Amino acid sequence: MIKVGINGYGTIGKRVAEAVTLQDDMEIVGVVKTKPTYELRGALDAGFPVFASTKSKVDFFEEMGVKVSGVTEDLVEIADVIIDCTPGKLGVNNMDMYRKAGTKAIWQGGEKHAPIGVSFNALTNYSSSINADFVRVVSCNTTGLGRTLYPLRQKYGIDNVQAVMVRRSGDPKDSDRGPLNSIEPVLSVPSHHGPDVQTIMHGINIQTMAVKVPTTIMHVHCIIAELDSEPNVDEILGMWESTPRVNLVEGFLNKDGDKIRNLPGTAEIMELARDALYTRGDLNQIAVWKDGVHAFGKKLYYYQAIHQESDVIPENIDAIRAMFNLESDNMASILKTNKALGID
Amino acid sequence: MIKVGINGYGTIGKRVAEAVTLQDDMEIVGVVKTKPTYELRGALDAGFPVFASTKSKVDFFEEMGVKVSGVTEDLVEIADVIIDCTPGKLGVNNMDMYRKAGTKAIWQGGEKHAPIGVSFNALTNYSSSINADFVRVVSCNTTGLGRTLYPLRQKYGIDNVQAVMVRRSGDPKDSDRGPLNSIEPVLSVPSHHGPDVQTIMHGINIQTMAVKVPTTIMHVHCIIAELDSEPNVDEILGMWESTPRVNLVEGFLNKDGDKIRNLPGTAEIMELARDALYTRGDLNQIAVWKDGVHAFGKKLYYYQAIHQESDVIPENIDAIRAMFNLESDNMASILKTNKALGID
Amino acid sequence: MIKVGINGYGTIGKRVAEAVTLQDDMEIVGVVKTKPTYELRGALDAGFPVFASTKSKVDFFEEMGVKVSGVTEDLVEIADVIIDCTPGKLGVNNMDMYRKAGTKAIWQGGEKHAPIGVSFNALTNYSSSINADFVRVVSCNTTGLGRTLYPLRQKYGIDNVQAVMVRRSGDPKDSDRGPLNSIEPVLSVPSHHGPDVQTIMHGINIQTMAVKVPTTIMHVHCIIAELDSEPNVDEILGMWESTPRVNLVEGFLNKDGDKIRNLPGTAEIMELARDALYTRGDLNQIAVWKDGVHAFGKKLYYYQAIHQESDVIPENIDAIRAMFNLESDNMASILKTNKALGID
Amino acid sequence: MIKVGINGYGTIGKRVAEAVTLQDDMEIVGVVKTKPTYELRGALDAGFPVFASTKSKVDFFEEMGVKVSGVTEDLVEIADVIIDCTPGKLGVNNMDMYRKAGTKAIWQGGEKHAPIGVSFNALTNYSSSINADFVRVVSCNTTGLGRTLYPLRQKYGIDNVQAVMVRRSGDPKDSDRGPLNSIEPVLSVPSHHGPDVQTIMHGINIQTMAVKVPTTIMHVHCIIAELDSEPNVDEILGMWESTPRVNLVEGFLNKDGDKIRNLPGTAEIMELARDALYTRGDLNQIAVWKDGVHAFGKKLYYYQAIHQESDVIPENIDAIRAMFNLESDNMASILKTNKALGID
Repeated sequence: MIKVGINGYGTIGKRVAEAVTLQDDMEIVGVVKTKPTYELRGALDAGFPVFASTKSKVDFFEEMGVKVSGVTEDLVEIADVIIDCTPGKLGVNNMDMYRKAGTKAIWQGGEKHAPIGVSFNALTNYSSSINADFVRVVSCNTTGLGRTLYPLRQKYGIDNVQAVMVRRSGDPKDSDRGPLNSIEPVLSVPSHHGPDVQTIMHGINIQTMAVKVPTTIMHVHCIIAELDSEPNVDEILGMWESTPRVNLVEGFLNKDGDKIRNLPGTAEIMELARDALYTRGDLNQIAVWKDGVHAFGKKLYYYQAIHQESDVIPENIDAIRAMFNLESDNMASILKTNKALGID
Repeated sequence: MIKVGINGYGTIGKRVAEAVTLQDDMEIVGVVKTKPTYELRGALDAGFPVFASTKSKVDFFEEMGVKVSGVTEDLVEIADVIIDCTPGKLGVNNMDMYRKAGTKAIWQGGEKHAPIGVSFNALTNYSSSINADFVRVVSCNTTGLGRTLYPLRQKYGIDNVQAVMVRRSGDPKDSDRGPLNSIEPVLSVPSHHGPDVQTIMHGINIQTMAVKVPTTIMHVHCIIAELDSEPNVDEILGMWESTPRVNLVEGFLNKDGDKIRNLPGTAEIMELARDALYTRGDLNQIAVWKDGVHAFGKKLYYYQAIHQESDVIPENIDAIRAMFNLESDNMASILKTNKALGID
Repeated sequence: MIKVGINGYGTIGKRVAEAVTLQDDMEIVGVVKTKPTYELRGALDAGFPVFASTKSKVDFFEEMGVKVSGVTEDLVEIADVIIDCTPGKLGVNNMDMYRKAGTKAIWQGGEKHAPIGVSFNALTNYSSSINADFVRVVSCNTTGLGRTLYPLRQKYGIDNVQAVMVRRSGDPKDSDRGPLNSIEPVLSVPSHHGPDVQTIMHGINIQTMAVKVPTTIMHVHCIIAELDSEPNVDEILGMWESTPRVNLVEGFLNKDGDKIRNLPGTAEIMELARDALYTRGDLNQIAVWKDGVHAFGKKLYYYQAIHQESDVIPENIDAIRAMFNLESDNMASILKTNKALGID
Repeated sequence: MIKVGINGYGTIGKRVAEAVTLQDDMEIVGVVKTKPTYELRGALDAGFPVFASTKSKVDFFEEMGVKVSGVTEDLVEIADVIIDCTPGKLGVNNMDMYRKAGTKAIWQGGEKHAPIGVSFNALTNYSSSINADFVRVVSCNTTGLGRTLYPLRQKYGIDNVQAVMVRRSGDPKDSDRGPLNSIEPVLSVPSHHGPDVQTIMHGINIQTMAVKVPTTIMHVHCIIAELDSEPNVDEILGMWESTPRVNLVEGFLNKDGDKIRNLPGTAEIMELARDALYTRGDLNQIAVWKDGVHAFGKKLYYYQAIHQESDVIPENIDAIRAMFNLESDNMASILKTNKALGID
């Protein structure tokens, strides 16, 4: 049993913790949190040992009635691997601490690729992380692009990809985020999403633009992929149907020429995840609208929706497996994780 | 085992169906839906027999690959009780159909009290529905008002209540609803919420105002209750602590004079429900902010948040019990339901 | 001609500046801004001298091609009165600077009453500011409450007021504000709005609750005023009709029993202000929904909408007049200001 | 003086009416409205004769105290040209009425090109409408694409354009529109925007995708234009600087390496239009973010924002001039209109 510690028990951290407990080859040995807020609820319910981020914080936890098992360094000591889910761009500051303790570590996509050196997506480049000490699981958006672009590249070859990411502004719980009633473009082009895909799909030619909009659930990608040969939409739908962690959905049903709203937007897709009784109403899969896939010549157009809170969760599990070489084959790990999480 | 049929498998219908399956004294014998949209997912996963609303709809279901077990009348025939979750103000049109079949029925709060004659809240007036044939479970808002006002009335007596309901605009899945960037008052005063409370708390003096705002999760009630004697806030918090289906939350934590955001708004409260791993991320309980309860003289001020999709679900279960006299005591039914649903 | 300087050229500052230029007894001698952002546009178009907040900022203005006429102290020296529109709670730090220069000053409602000592509303307590050196124009919300409560108190007497303020989250331009998809109550009761009304209506008994919602335009007040004698709605509407800076609107039109949407929410009221071709689409008046005014016994219920960016603008003008005793009578000043601004 | 009638006094109709009154070669002879709602305010203030849409509506206007000058047919009779601003796809039903009366007509972009036969943009194809009887002014989005793509095509040639339109959901006054907290893709590709550009820029190769997001102000276009030769960004900025009705804006200011928010999103751009004291706070120009324009090889990437309520207003004025051959040269008309409207 691999001993897993979570450093940063927020949106991603708590989900990885829950996912770990569902696997038979790893377990949670503790979680680090900076403040004893309501988000500890899940940890307390699950009986995870709670660690304060620093000594100075221990008091506050105890005032709130939370038993503290130590501080970050203590957890690093006992864990085989730390999942670092501290806020973006700060996580790499912990690298020395992990290295000194001889503890492996996984960071999330908010960190840059360079200092970590290995970026991970289970489908596209699992093997690059086998036996690695430090791995970065790429962001929700990069993960989503990887999952649908990979089979396209395998089958047709990709000349170039142009994508526009329509980004939600904050997670549902981040109620202090804006913008309200505004659309904000990411003015640097390519936005960071494009180059980041190259860390998991070597040499892919991709440019991305992005805008931020006032919603809290799911990003939407508008993708234009110019392939090396002419795509066939039905064939592609079939390919994606059998790609793990890709979920084809229909925006509208057709009945006698009428279009009936089915899953026209991200709100309904989130409801579908709740209807499926997925934990927390999460959708680990990338949703691709079947009726939004179109081909003109070598260009393929499609829309996909990304559940920013959860699509990387199974990737973290697979990354752990790769780093300890629990499975040498990516599909073996993916299917094992999916089965444990009840997804496909 | 009471045979329960669901007429209208939407926001409320699907939740009642799932809640019924968790009880040991009732079971689902079928659900009626008007269109074979994605919302059938839960029914298909659960193996509920699916009925089309009318014969003319059967085709559409079959085209979508959904096996149809009959139409509404067929389900009414085999059920002991129908939970009518058809859209507000249309449901009573079905009363004759239920009466002819000798089938009991429960309607939701979108219907008016008068044609049904009995309105229900498990805490405030369970006994009025014992052995009744037709019962109306009051709306999410009325349910919420009943749960917190009832113990206040028991303990202090209530002179009058003034409440302002800040209403979400649509359920999360109702993505075609507005208003966007607007606040809309309900100009008729009292709004329908006030008089409706009188159907479950006889003779209470309550006026309500309401505004609609652009969110999809939870209503917030701002309540001013003038009591017959001076309230004690700590005593009241204790009372609510032991009231079933009331959940005290803290908006802010205090640490050395700083206020730290904990559960300041409805977004965080919904996240708490997800963290508790409640089904669908629902919160069947009414959330009352502890740090928002204040007394001045005989007036008590407090805020509560209502999860409009789910607070009435356990009430529907209790109503079934009352109508078949499965439990003669309200607390017995409430506790049995709560235990089955994993709430308190 | 009174020489007016604006310290803080943002939402309020720029509007006061424009309003000053429309009066015949005062003029703008300069505006202070901290950064040379787009919001200088109006100042440059109008030819207002621009002052940098501090010496260290002068460079930045000049790099952006903006001619700088000096820094804050220079403007304070040449102005007869400074309108301090610096961010809330920081403005009083400037009091010493104004005092040393012998320059009068007006602060906005974000400041506390105590250090300034005189709070101002033209309708309710104009005379208290005559010849004063330092005056605070109360907030948009307090201004709105004052305008509609004052005539009620004059006519009927007020026993107590309970009000719930449904607040927009940020101004339209403040696109980095939340909350998104959340309702946040102000958990301290009374919220600061209630006590603040007492600074302009001595001895009034008022409690307020408040919630923050995700819109950018207008606050809505839900008001329950318990009067000393039974109110007559028609009489009150007549009274408000003749109250300056109060604007009666109809939410719905009635045609053969149908209710037709007219001005049901704040979005439509803002559109009305644009249709009236008011500068910037502002609404200096308080909008009260005629069809939302109701009386039960001594209790009067009504809704009003507050344009948070602009209702205090004419108040600032009137405050200047009072401080220099340009008009000794409040109605004379109000009507002069209104005429100049094209409102009533 | 060309006699102009407005059929449909809503978002576009009222703005065209106001713009007409500012020209010296045309005048308003009446406006048609279907209901006497608040939106008549501008017409009454301006003294425009009001016509009811049909005889059956006359009563309602008179009950509301609005003098009616006749019905639609009466206005068509006296006008030289009707600006048809009735809701999309219904306007062409009026074509016979206009033809019988020998009255010219302009429709808006909600109508299809085919039945009208001539689509109009002042910059790209003014001459095609000279002396035409029936003309369609293209939609806000097509207008925006035309304005920035036209000079690119003139200078570099365009191989193909890929654009993603991030659309606001409803106009500010349309407060009953959704979606709330959702992103909805337009699943048919190309969305109608692409082919529509071909009606004003013959033969251009353009595909478009679109998503709807919960804001009320401005669309944002993410544009990828593959040119026939390598573009130079500075040259292009210079070109757009001198293109009428295009407005370059800066998202961020740079000061010593810090990026300072200036006009990062649509909310701030709308504030800029208010600061410029444009009527109603409208922005007739297309806003292009200077710091969002980037070139890689032959591909040019840029973002632009479209004020959906107003960018077509000057186009309607120019279209009238073309149809009556008041100006034979497009730039002459454009500059005359711009001067009258106070824009550039």
